Amino acid sequence: MPHIKLNENLPGMRALLEFSPETAHPINELAEILLREDNTLSRGDRELIGTYVSYLNNCFFCQNVHGSLAQFYMKCDMKFIDDIKADFEKMPLSNKMKALLTIAASVQRGGKNVTPHQIENAKIEGATDKEIHDTVLIAAFFCMCNRYVDGLNTTANPDRQFYIDRSETRANQGYRDFDLHK
Amino acid sequence: MPHIKLNENLPGMRALLEFSPETAHPINELAEILLREDNTLSRGDRELIGTYVSYLNNCFFCQNVHGSLAQFYMKCDMKFIDDIKADFEKMPLSNKMKALLTIAASVQRGGKNVTPHQIENAKIEGATDKEIHDTVLIAAFFCMCNRYVDGLNTTANPDRQFYIDRSETRANQGYRDFDLHK
Repeated sequence: MPHIKLNENLPGMRALLEFSPETAHPINELAEILLREDNTLSRGDRELIGTYVSYLNNCFFCQNVHGSLAQFYMKCDMKFIDDIKADFEKMPLSNKMKALLTIAASVQRGGKNVTPHQIENAKIEGATDKEIHDTVLIAAFFCMCNRYVDGLNTTANPDRQFYIDRSETRANQGYRDFDLHK
Repeated sequence: MPHIKLNENLPGMRALLEFSPETAHPINELAEILLREDNTLSRGDRELIGTYVSYLNNCFFCQNVHGSLAQFYMKCDMKFIDDIKADFEKMPLSNKMKALLTIAASVQRGGKNVTPHQIENAKIEGATDKEIHDTVLIAAFFCMCNRYVDGLNTTANPDRQFYIDRSETRANQGYRDFDLHK
């Protein structure tokens, strides 16, 4: 049961966005810019960074919403996303993406955990300053969203297939002023 | 030295807001709504929650910028803020504020650490659902900002008096589209 009175028909973040529409607007705007707007990192790459951080924060709702979006954009299945979460170093991802996921994992533990060596490695693998910036901010953004969703104990559909089935609709919907009930 | 090329004349968050103006807008908007707009929690209370979370995340820049704003709004000195950070239970704060700081500390460690008992206690001390919501989101917001500032290794003036001296200007400036160079 959520810690405060929320609309029972809305799960996770959606219930919070309805409860507080004034803060919903900039949160959605930040999600849209970071995860969907033009970027040299693909939408799949960016949803994957958010999914991985949500996994490290053990946030069921966020890792399934965004993991489903990652598998939709990456045209893979959810097992592939789960395998990345379990051990991305063993997976067929680019070295640049592995270097960025390493930075994201450090940010999840706390900003000071990002080392010059991790940054240097990402640059060697071709990451630009903007890509490193965006990786850090996406990871930090999910550290906020995961805490918001779990800190108020919101509900979530426990059926993981539910999120996969909705991923195409969600991808078309975007984050900017979307209809919370669709 | 910052991990990416930032304007050397701007410290901490300011350098990041200049580097990425498109994400700066919603971040500043969220700060303005959470920390300054009309609320039953005073501006001092809300800056104090942000300061305490920044202290727990060991973010020097954020805990001094926002700690200085807290002492300005609360009309106390920085020692009083430092004593709250060290052990707020011993300090002359309302029981409601102590209950909200307890929730904020749980959010800092991760959303799932907030317990029904902590929520119940805050409600017994008079906290409304909106105040509990805002406390959780302010704490989560600072978990993002602290990681953003430290994850990119931004610089900060080490002189704590600098932040105290600027607190009135900063309080008048607000967070919405402020001049980064003032």
